[in-house]
Amino acid sequence: MKGGVDLGGTKIQTVIVDDRNEVVGQARRPTPTKGGPEAITAAIADSLREAAEAAKVATGELAGVGMGSPGDVDGRKGTVANAGNLSEWKEPSPVAKTLGDALGTKVKLGNDVNVATTAEFELGVGRDHKSLLGVFWGTGVGGGLILNSRIWLGRGAAGEIGHVVVKRGGAKCPCGRKGCMEAYAGRAAMEAEARRRVEKGEKTKLFELMEQRGRERLTSGIWARALRNGDDMAEKLIDRAVKALGCGIASSVNLLDVEAVVIGGGLGVRFGETYAKRIKKEMMPHLFVDDRPPTVAVASLGDLGGAIGAALLIRP
Amino acid sequence: MKGGVDLGGTKIQTVIVDDRNEVVGQARRPTPTKGGPEAITAAIADSLREAAEAAKVATGELAGVGMGSPGDVDGRKGTVANAGNLSEWKEPSPVAKTLGDALGTKVKLGNDVNVATTAEFELGVGRDHKSLLGVFWGTGVGGGLILNSRIWLGRGAAGEIGHVVVKRGGAKCPCGRKGCMEAYAGRAAMEAEARRRVEKGEKTKLFELMEQRGRERLTSGIWARALRNGDDMAEKLIDRAVKALGCGIASSVNLLDVEAVVIGGGLGVRFGETYAKRIKKEMMPHLFVDDRPPTVAVASLGDLGGAIGAALLIRP
Repeated sequence: MKGGVDLGGTKIQTVIVDDRNEVVGQARRPTPTKGGPEAITAAIADSLREAAEAAKVATGELAGVGMGSPGDVDGRKGTVANAGNLSEWKEPSPVAKTLGDALGTKVKLGNDVNVATTAEFELGVGRDHKSLLGVFWGTGVGGGLILNSRIWLGRGAAGEIGHVVVKRGGAKCPCGRKGCMEAYAGRAAMEAEARRRVEKGEKTKLFELMEQRGRERLTSGIWARALRNGDDMAEKLIDRAVKALGCGIASSVNLLDVEAVVIGGGLGVRFGETYAKRIKKEMMPHLFVDDRPPTVAVASLGDLGGAIGAALLIRP
Repeated sequence: MKGGVDLGGTKIQTVIVDDRNEVVGQARRPTPTKGGPEAITAAIADSLREAAEAAKVATGELAGVGMGSPGDVDGRKGTVANAGNLSEWKEPSPVAKTLGDALGTKVKLGNDVNVATTAEFELGVGRDHKSLLGVFWGTGVGGGLILNSRIWLGRGAAGEIGHVVVKRGGAKCPCGRKGCMEAYAGRAAMEAEARRRVEKGEKTKLFELMEQRGRERLTSGIWARALRNGDDMAEKLIDRAVKALGCGIASSVNLLDVEAVVIGGGLGVRFGETYAKRIKKEMMPHLFVDDRPPTVAVASLGDLGGAIGAALLIRP
């Protein structure tokens, strides 16, 4: 058995998988918003212990634990730096060693998006394909590439599909640049745009729903609820996001001609097949070879894909 | 020794290279504008005989001839179809066999952009890199990808960087779609835009220069001459092209994180280093990782790159 961790800005998801990579234990908790790497690493260890208990295994008996992390991940050194969404996590933190010592097993690190892409490729909806583009539609828009059955990292930073430009000189992106796909499709950018429109006097139930649900952010669930309520602004902003996704993904397919596109992430998984179809429809007018478009499918491992993919970092 | 052919819409360039891939003979002639595949294949054979004569070799003694072609190239079947820029060349034509019979040697076919990219990777400015993006800036904008020291073809149509979108809903592209990089940067699209602006009453010397030089199209040389003359419209349209190239190439680098970008093609080679620098400058604001941008260099094999790369299709 081995462990897997998906470290996100909002939550920590852990799993224990058996030798066939089936999930035999899992646990989840909120990511500590203060206390820096120390507090976060301690929370990860606790979550793993809980998952291990559910799987009736001691963490020290695991073949190892893999962790998918945001930020600059150095797999060889076992460090994570510049994790902008995490509390006080700028300097490289030796999380592989700290966590390994706490659990009594070896820990391997990988990039969160890449491990989630690998999981879909090896175990999920991408398993019949040799090349695929993973698009993780959430707070930001991340991307992972499988080419020739292997993850493509470039010089270490490949896959930034969120920053493929869809409109030169267009909307401001949270990254500071202009016209990126994420500037239209990322949940953070969409929330900022919704706030700007409210300030201009436009109406929406988005923030009312947010307060009713006791949230501080427009989560995927709140966007989904607003759509069900027929909220006009939510519909417009999601439509704008889907168009940007279609355009940026089509550009990427024109460049790479991959067999499949896998849509994951908080919004991607929440919105599911209906929206995968809408994204594909928006891709079509931009596909250079449009008589054999790639398969476009929702990540089948759902929420657990990141943690399962992280466990795959531990090879026999 | 082996032969190489670069079949273009305007000209046929042939070379004979020795065992170290040095050019020992070359010939060039205009691509026949009528007579279909038969006339074109005959012209290719003539050009190869002339190049072989210069290299003091009989075509039958060559280890083989490689040919880079536009259109749908089927390397295994030895056919080319749908070569839109060539006379009456829609149906698959068995050019490998026809040409091989005429020359008394085997003929292998490849995609024109991919063989030119391979040439720069193996022998040209890309030879110190393991991953590169070739951008061929000419009548259209073609792209070739080397990833992990091998050409990446996807499902056969990878590399269409000309149809990476730089502005959703933007300018009409010769391909019929909207907002493609080629809609702003391709020579055909630039000429169409220049004609539209002239019809609206804007002034330019572009078409006067074209007539003086006895041309029917705005060739790379005419654009270069207009720029030297300080022609305002030429400057604006080239500037627009450079901005689109910078944006589309940066998007591609964000996705692939390649080590190098090689700028080739008629305009790319003609405009040279100064414009490669300008393209890089326009890439910078869109690069997600901007502290280590890829090398951006002009194709060092110049005009002969396509034919030399085609010769590389013949392996010992």
